[in-house]
Amino acid sequence: MTSKYKYLGKTTEAVDALEKVIGKAAFGADIHLPGMLYGKVLRSPHPHAKIKSIDYSKALTLEGVKAVITSKDLPSLEDARASFGGELTMDLGQIRKLLLADGKTLFDGHAIAAVAATSLEIAEQALELINVDYEILPVIENALQAMRPDTPLIHPDLYTRTLGEKPKAPSNIGTMLEHQRGDPEKGFAEADVVVEESFETAMVHQGYIEPQACAAWADGDGKVTVWTSTQGIFNTRDQIAALLKITRGRLNVVPMEIGGGFGGKNDNLLQTLTVMLAQKTGRPVKMIMSRDEVFRATGPSSPAYFTVKVGAKKDGEITAAYIKMIYDSGAVPGGPLHLGWVASCGAYSIPNLKIDGYDVVSNKPRVQPYRAPGVTPVVFAIETTMDILAEKLGMDTLKFRLRNCAKEGDYMPDDQKYARIGLKEVLERVASHPHWNTPLEGPNRGRGLAMGMWTGATLSSSALVMVNGDGSATGVSGQVDLTGTRTTTRQIIAEALQLPLEKVQVRVADTESTPYTMTSVGSRTTYAFGTAVYRACQDALAQMKARAAPQLLVDVGDIEYAEGKFWSKKDLEKAVSWNEVARNTQTRGEGMVTGRGSATRLPIAPEFNAHIVDVEVDPETGKASIKRWTAVQDAGLAVNPMQVEGQMQGGVTQGIGWGISEYYYYDKGKLRNPTFLDYRMPTSLDVPMIDTSIVEVPAPDGPYGIRGVGEACIVCPPAAIASAIYRATGVRMNKLPMTPEAVFWAIKAKEKQLVAADGH
Amino acid sequence: MTSKYKYLGKTTEAVDALEKVIGKAAFGADIHLPGMLYGKVLRSPHPHAKIKSIDYSKALTLEGVKAVITSKDLPSLEDARASFGGELTMDLGQIRKLLLADGKTLFDGHAIAAVAATSLEIAEQALELINVDYEILPVIENALQAMRPDTPLIHPDLYTRTLGEKPKAPSNIGTMLEHQRGDPEKGFAEADVVVEESFETAMVHQGYIEPQACAAWADGDGKVTVWTSTQGIFNTRDQIAALLKITRGRLNVVPMEIGGGFGGKNDNLLQTLTVMLAQKTGRPVKMIMSRDEVFRATGPSSPAYFTVKVGAKKDGEITAAYIKMIYDSGAVPGGPLHLGWVASCGAYSIPNLKIDGYDVVSNKPRVQPYRAPGVTPVVFAIETTMDILAEKLGMDTLKFRLRNCAKEGDYMPDDQKYARIGLKEVLERVASHPHWNTPLEGPNRGRGLAMGMWTGATLSSSALVMVNGDGSATGVSGQVDLTGTRTTTRQIIAEALQLPLEKVQVRVADTESTPYTMTSVGSRTTYAFGTAVYRACQDALAQMKARAAPQLLVDVGDIEYAEGKFWSKKDLEKAVSWNEVARNTQTRGEGMVTGRGSATRLPIAPEFNAHIVDVEVDPETGKASIKRWTAVQDAGLAVNPMQVEGQMQGGVTQGIGWGISEYYYYDKGKLRNPTFLDYRMPTSLDVPMIDTSIVEVPAPDGPYGIRGVGEACIVCPPAAIASAIYRATGVRMNKLPMTPEAVFWAIKAKEKQLVAADGH
Repeated sequence: MTSKYKYLGKTTEAVDALEKVIGKAAFGADIHLPGMLYGKVLRSPHPHAKIKSIDYSKALTLEGVKAVITSKDLPSLEDARASFGGELTMDLGQIRKLLLADGKTLFDGHAIAAVAATSLEIAEQALELINVDYEILPVIENALQAMRPDTPLIHPDLYTRTLGEKPKAPSNIGTMLEHQRGDPEKGFAEADVVVEESFETAMVHQGYIEPQACAAWADGDGKVTVWTSTQGIFNTRDQIAALLKITRGRLNVVPMEIGGGFGGKNDNLLQTLTVMLAQKTGRPVKMIMSRDEVFRATGPSSPAYFTVKVGAKKDGEITAAYIKMIYDSGAVPGGPLHLGWVASCGAYSIPNLKIDGYDVVSNKPRVQPYRAPGVTPVVFAIETTMDILAEKLGMDTLKFRLRNCAKEGDYMPDDQKYARIGLKEVLERVASHPHWNTPLEGPNRGRGLAMGMWTGATLSSSALVMVNGDGSATGVSGQVDLTGTRTTTRQIIAEALQLPLEKVQVRVADTESTPYTMTSVGSRTTYAFGTAVYRACQDALAQMKARAAPQLLVDVGDIEYAEGKFWSKKDLEKAVSWNEVARNTQTRGEGMVTGRGSATRLPIAPEFNAHIVDVEVDPETGKASIKRWTAVQDAGLAVNPMQVEGQMQGGVTQGIGWGISEYYYYDKGKLRNPTFLDYRMPTSLDVPMIDTSIVEVPAPDGPYGIRGVGEACIVCPPAAIASAIYRATGVRMNKLPMTPEAVFWAIKAKEKQLVAADGH
Repeated sequence: MTSKYKYLGKTTEAVDALEKVIGKAAFGADIHLPGMLYGKVLRSPHPHAKIKSIDYSKALTLEGVKAVITSKDLPSLEDARASFGGELTMDLGQIRKLLLADGKTLFDGHAIAAVAATSLEIAEQALELINVDYEILPVIENALQAMRPDTPLIHPDLYTRTLGEKPKAPSNIGTMLEHQRGDPEKGFAEADVVVEESFETAMVHQGYIEPQACAAWADGDGKVTVWTSTQGIFNTRDQIAALLKITRGRLNVVPMEIGGGFGGKNDNLLQTLTVMLAQKTGRPVKMIMSRDEVFRATGPSSPAYFTVKVGAKKDGEITAAYIKMIYDSGAVPGGPLHLGWVASCGAYSIPNLKIDGYDVVSNKPRVQPYRAPGVTPVVFAIETTMDILAEKLGMDTLKFRLRNCAKEGDYMPDDQKYARIGLKEVLERVASHPHWNTPLEGPNRGRGLAMGMWTGATLSSSALVMVNGDGSATGVSGQVDLTGTRTTTRQIIAEALQLPLEKVQVRVADTESTPYTMTSVGSRTTYAFGTAVYRACQDALAQMKARAAPQLLVDVGDIEYAEGKFWSKKDLEKAVSWNEVARNTQTRGEGMVTGRGSATRLPIAPEFNAHIVDVEVDPETGKASIKRWTAVQDAGLAVNPMQVEGQMQGGVTQGIGWGISEYYYYDKGKLRNPTFLDYRMPTSLDVPMIDTSIVEVPAPDGPYGIRGVGEACIVCPPAAIASAIYRATGVRMNKLPMTPEAVFWAIKAKEKQLVAADGH
């Protein structure tokens, strides 16, 4: 790939690489403070139980135990709401319920109490001295059970919300979504072929390497500092501030390096407990989750159920679609229903569309986003249905996609209109790709295809760009770097200011010294935050021009700038270097130049992709081995191609796990596989070299055509694998994960069917 | 005092008080990093010697020793200059000479080498294993000796600079200053009385409680973080960056709480050594000075010599003055000559004036500023001369001052013109003060008076003010808080934004996340930095108005704001609260409001004061005991009266030490009293309750009439005490300190004179 830019579109050194490789990067657990205590959480072994009493008097007598907290130590919800007076990414009442069980436990692993002690060992001992009297309640295991009219209510105060309507009766359904466009009934009537299928997907975990970790310190005058790895320091600040009634400005959240988040480090349960213990003891406290706690008590992804019905004419044109989506949000409502809806069939141009959605509670941990939240399951359902439909129409599955793919002017599932998007270019790249055009070799092999999209979050971003006295520039923000965004931000600044890369630094500082910026989620950082950075650069450049003008004795309007030089367009001899102007800010006391940039309410810059996969299914075991993978994605502009490829490959790898091996195994509400031994993530043996192909159809808004790239790449793999398995074995897998066992039995069932059919 | 402001002019809680009182505030020595090493410096026992060789091979064999550095580890001066390309507050070549002796030692305590080891004990042991072969050179003990033509040159490459002239021949004089206005010769000819006196003052130390301390860490990719207590994080960054050829943006300086600076924490010798050791070992390193090192090897104040000649008419009008000032700057040039000159006789209106000044090197530590740098000694000389002159004229010493005091439109010693100043009001306050009007009681008592001024630094300042989503505001800067400026900054923000004080926080962050701002020196913070803060508030307020306008559907020009409420001046019903507008920045995603403020090239806002002191001199011992003290000072606006009083009382206390007990005792260039036992600072027994009286004549520039207050208060005490001793004993003290011994012998000499006179 060649780039018309000097620093964009090039693979530059990752600024954090060396530190991470040599072990000097400091993560959430790497804070040590004098006099620090260690905290540990007592977690419920029961998925659903009334708490009749908690007696921790014995724990307090253990030498070294400094404090025990329970939900009684929390401010009341009413007080907290009144004091906070803002909005959170998660309902305050719901996160409070999750934080510490208040009268009843909602899932296996729910925090009951927390202890701070002078050592981890003492803290763990103390947990055993806490007596909790439980009254076991019936377990609501999943969304389908929860929705049955005779199922007991998990939250008697949960009223179903339907968009635009008043709350209905209490139920286990948090939100109902009904959306329609065009005339689906008429659309289906016009169809020559209609396919309807049902699907089920499992609860899976983001599987980040670093467990949640946090240190907190409450100063003498009540000011709190929190060091933690989080996706959003301001979100962390606001959640803790709201729960504990702390003025936002009196709570400083310092971001540590983050060892993977993928959406799973948005909640702040552990952080809030750490602060509570720090406040109660007056000493610094550190808490680190064990892997068991990470699995049982953080937010995995939502398991879901779908029915997809699509109709098309003989020529392949889709006339109508209906999608029913049920997302299980776990202990409290608020799963990814909305995000799943918006992206679901967003890769298709569908004139008549109806979508029904349900967000349902059950006795499982409350879900959190996981890379393109809610979309991977629904794309698995939609793409499998489309694959079947194409087959029924006798059309090549790629041509069917090309016939129906979304393009500029089409509408998303939520009726937003697309600006310029790159899906067609992605599919054309697939069509011409060697992988697509090389025949499969050997038996039991199949090739699958799937496409999908991610809307791309924008939210609200802020950045500062400071010009230092030596002409170097520093980008400062509170935008947490999950994926290499310090490196891409550096490139954007170098490009915008036309400065050598080595003169640009990027700093992610704390909530107390940076302007408010929202969490690093939804592929928004490079595009939306990058826009704020770009604007801050423009602002800094304008200030630099205004400084240069009087030095050159010309009007600022006559000043041109390029490559480190300002000059008068009326008199080319009148020129001064960037460094000279910068130096004068210090040496002549002209004062600093600080560029300021915000980006709010940006138009979305959706990301589209398509994946080709070859699998070989072992007929003896049902194991689907991935033989070859090609991911094609529209990056708008790949700021740092190697990082874009890394995102694509990472997304595919996680998608493979979701597709063929990962799932939460619940036994009457108790999680039986909370270890990496039993919860099977893909290893290097399960994943081939993943080939990537980057398409660049510039996003029309924002600088340089940049689009986010981190999420779309996870949405296709399960569907693509299912399609490949079908072509290798003739069986359609409508349930995730497609484990060897599941595929084996599906093959067996198919053989039985064939035998039975033969028999007739 | 009553104030027309809501938050200014009131004594509000000091934001850092509780933390400091309960021991939670973290100072320079309070950083602990995993794997940290301890550094220690080998210092020269010889004030002047050639270094023939340094052999540290044995030290390196000691277990636990990780590195030894000498001047050989420094980049060459030429490289460093070329790489830095800016300006420093101290000449790069000179600070490099001080940092590590390069071929020759310049003073007792000069750093020769530094060691990093796994413990402090091992580091200290290692120092003893370093062999240095010295060739002793003659010691140049003071400026007078240094200026003699036959004295050897300390720096053969030191050429005397005279303002506006080319360097002259090499000498021990760094700078010569010649300044004249009017016609001094004619002025003296017109005088009825002329007095000429000579004076000598001692080298004294700032005497801060906290010794210099620093921790440093060089990341894997060469990025350096420094934690230290310093008066200026950007100055620290720039000095280290220049000396060690580090890009400024790759060096982050984090300010710790500072346990007193008073000008003495501007250089960065220890910090630079710490960084060198951190770079060489790849591990975190901490260094803390012992008190012995603080005395021997940091920057005390300049000892000085003066001749003052003043002529006046019979009616008291001063017609001419001549001042010769010789400042001893220690090992390398650059003492307080310029600052001493500018303020010297700035309290007087003098039509014909001649000043000759010399900045001279000697074999002592290089001086650093000490509270009104250079002014206390010269005011001692001038005020004593004026006191004598008033007596010779038969005029009351206060009336003489009132007759000649500087006022608006008069000229400073460097010919800057005064805007509105408050000296006359200060003297009028003295005239009406009970202390001045209460007769002295008891024998051996005398009352002294002195007046003086401090120009007030302005330099260059930057600040950000962020409006948080809960309506609170946070001031962010890199402006180090030496004296309570977080508290006064908070008051300024609360006043400017009309927000309750508890909704305002102030943060001093590091060089990497804040815009460039200059060091906290010269009483500039509350006035000059405060102006930047005020401007940042105005900027934030303008942005908030721009947000409120569309919410109220009115033009932004019609928006009024007061007390947390925006409204339309055309329709009072149209109103929205500050909190609502702030909340929308987060909840409606309108993006943050960050106010930006700079203040550069501000006009000065000079501070004037006058002190009254009653002393009792014990004729048996010569000890002058301070019985009563009143300090009257123009604060412009006393933002926080208790803090202003604290500054005044602190300045007086330090001035008392300078006046009667403190001095560096050098014996052939070796410091013999580098402990608080032998270096006698005032204790609570030496200082009475110091009464303060604040005058408020607003400074015409900058917000709210604020002036700096921290420096003027130290310039009068020695002169006032000398005047009181004269009135108690009849002896004039022309040399500091006026120890009991000195006063005793002066009294004896006077008696001898009288006896001799009687005898004749």
